[in-house]
Amino acid sequence: MRPPSKRVAKKMNEKSPLAPDRFPDLPPLDGVKLATAQAGIKYQGRTDLMIARMGPNTTAAGVYTRSLTASAPVEWCRKALEGGLGEVLVVNSGNANAFTGQAGVSSVDRTVEAAADLFTCRPSKVFVASTGVIGEPLPDDKITDALSGLHNALDADNWQTAAQAIMTTDTFPKGCTRKAKIGDVEVTLNGIAKGSGMIAPDMATMLAFVFTDAAIPGETLQDMLNKGAEKSFNAITVDSDTSTSDTLMLFATGEAGNDPSAVLDDFRQKLEDLLIDLAGQVVRDGEGASKFISVTVTGADDDAAAKRIGLAIANSPLVKTAIAGEDANWGRIVMAVGKAGEKADRDKLAIKIGGVTITDGGQVIPDYDETPVAEHMKGSDIDIRVDVGIASGEATVWTCDLTHGYITINADYRS
Amino acid sequence: MRPPSKRVAKKMNEKSPLAPDRFPDLPPLDGVKLATAQAGIKYQGRTDLMIARMGPNTTAAGVYTRSLTASAPVEWCRKALEGGLGEVLVVNSGNANAFTGQAGVSSVDRTVEAAADLFTCRPSKVFVASTGVIGEPLPDDKITDALSGLHNALDADNWQTAAQAIMTTDTFPKGCTRKAKIGDVEVTLNGIAKGSGMIAPDMATMLAFVFTDAAIPGETLQDMLNKGAEKSFNAITVDSDTSTSDTLMLFATGEAGNDPSAVLDDFRQKLEDLLIDLAGQVVRDGEGASKFISVTVTGADDDAAAKRIGLAIANSPLVKTAIAGEDANWGRIVMAVGKAGEKADRDKLAIKIGGVTITDGGQVIPDYDETPVAEHMKGSDIDIRVDVGIASGEATVWTCDLTHGYITINADYRS
Repeated sequence: MRPPSKRVAKKMNEKSPLAPDRFPDLPPLDGVKLATAQAGIKYQGRTDLMIARMGPNTTAAGVYTRSLTASAPVEWCRKALEGGLGEVLVVNSGNANAFTGQAGVSSVDRTVEAAADLFTCRPSKVFVASTGVIGEPLPDDKITDALSGLHNALDADNWQTAAQAIMTTDTFPKGCTRKAKIGDVEVTLNGIAKGSGMIAPDMATMLAFVFTDAAIPGETLQDMLNKGAEKSFNAITVDSDTSTSDTLMLFATGEAGNDPSAVLDDFRQKLEDLLIDLAGQVVRDGEGASKFISVTVTGADDDAAAKRIGLAIANSPLVKTAIAGEDANWGRIVMAVGKAGEKADRDKLAIKIGGVTITDGGQVIPDYDETPVAEHMKGSDIDIRVDVGIASGEATVWTCDLTHGYITINADYRS
Repeated sequence: MRPPSKRVAKKMNEKSPLAPDRFPDLPPLDGVKLATAQAGIKYQGRTDLMIARMGPNTTAAGVYTRSLTASAPVEWCRKALEGGLGEVLVVNSGNANAFTGQAGVSSVDRTVEAAADLFTCRPSKVFVASTGVIGEPLPDDKITDALSGLHNALDADNWQTAAQAIMTTDTFPKGCTRKAKIGDVEVTLNGIAKGSGMIAPDMATMLAFVFTDAAIPGETLQDMLNKGAEKSFNAITVDSDTSTSDTLMLFATGEAGNDPSAVLDDFRQKLEDLLIDLAGQVVRDGEGASKFISVTVTGADDDAAAKRIGLAIANSPLVKTAIAGEDANWGRIVMAVGKAGEKADRDKLAIKIGGVTITDGGQVIPDYDETPVAEHMKGSDIDIRVDVGIASGEATVWTCDLTHGYITINADYRS
């Protein structure tokens, strides 16, 4: 595998046109401190290692890749999560420690052991994540060598630098913050994420880490994270490719002092908001993306069916290229609904783009005027709504368009 | 939906670099006559209507799109096929008669009725197929007006012109012929096909029609076609998009005079050869294709699992762009195996490209030398073999690479 040429590397590093104006202000959060370092794992002249230290009573929840060729760090996290508590998180960029056989497992073991020693906690309270090239041994000595320096640099204000340290081919750091009420107590949620293509040139992975000072029992936390992930990180697609390393974790330090048995409706809602915001930022940094696309499917057999239809539309290369070409090609949406394999009534199918009804009752509406739709297609945010006329299942998924930029980033290695 | 600009149209009509040198010589076949016409359905200055007339005892078999938004002609064929016999086939290009509601059904009815009258056969012996733009009413009067002229022009030698008349964005006509022995009797199989992208700019569909003079009972014919389709047209992918109109039909006129109860092993083999050849030609005409890719998966749970893993690799935009860039990026193959959702032993995974072992036992082999693999990647035919180390299921699928040409054809509507 050749390194990208300078020309492409430049293209890759150009900030996405869909990026937010700036990184949001993430406030300090009781019970969480962060630090970053330049460990030189692969990149030179930038940070590539991030550590988060949480209070001793922090509960943990995690959602991981469904890939059957999952990386060694993912396998470790799944096992460690059985303990339900988290005190240290170690994340490196530049090397995914995926498809590295027994050597990869040993690298994780050494990293966890060193972190557990330094922070005097049980190994099962140490979580690790790696993102970067697949199939190369992880130089874990560079991580363990950097740990004590990180320990000394821990600070409650390092959110943006933490988000930067975990980037690979991302063109902007991704963060989000929300406040929620649990009973009378206001709690904070801070999240950071990385990801652009599922794998970009050789880089793998979407990672997201969310922290809160709320006190929430581990099982409840896991349940909320599972549901939130379904509506956010499991509802986005850039290119339908699934990484070996996808990791989403949620840590709750409990230091806000709320009643752990109080009603969590507001927290749940704000968590979902935050997850959708972060997942949207990943899509907005999609490789070569020039349009952010929302696909809402209603009228499906159930919510899961609606989501599968939505993903069939969002993953269709023909739909995505049409949008790149600013063409309101609804015939391709019909095609994608048909291939999804979920119940849909062709003769009731209704399609709206940018709020304008194009088809209804299984055919294009009489006197369909493309003008307002063509105008909508020129914008950067495209809204597609499809009703499949069966029942009341619904879902929204998000994706980006498929452009020459994607091909350039992923195929044009030589200048 | 805007028409493609002249610049893109030119690009689209450039012959694929993977096209065969010439159209093969398809011999006359007892019991089949063909004719073509310029009906002006959408295209001007080229043929767009093809008719085949078969002898009165011709058995018929068909395999159709699994799309739930199937076109009106597909729905008709499925119903007509219950009779098991076929005497007339009417195919038009330029309009798919898909997503056209009740008007589309009426168009099919009128076409079938006119053909049945003219050829004095039962309507259930008339099959129809349409390929082209989705969502526009089919001007079936142009078809029925042309029928009597076609009747007079029927000839046993019109194979190449028939293959040309059904083209949409294809850059070359597709045909194949085979001889087989049934008992002591030599029989002939002729097939024609069209297809390049699943939908190109607004064009839909893969169509293939195979004819033989063998005498084969309808049920046996259907069984052979089902099995052959699994290994050919259902084992190719250009962009993972499924058309509303995919149609594969096999007609057996019986005029070779073989014993219908004789052993069919050789025929079955030659049919499979022919179907794989035609399906390969569709891939070689894939939109923007510069490489023809074979993916063979062995060691899977069963053959169906092997095929799903193969298709996960063949449909991965990251694998396809890597091949476009002539990059032996085996990490992306690992990723695609992982996302297929079928059993695979990560720690036994073996990958070969161009016959060279790259990974074995779940990691890259010691002292892996990329030189011969890099050489293979420069060729036009790429061979990928993956053993997933579970059991003995195997399958081969075919695809093409994903290039700037694909984006240009499908997104760049304006010059």
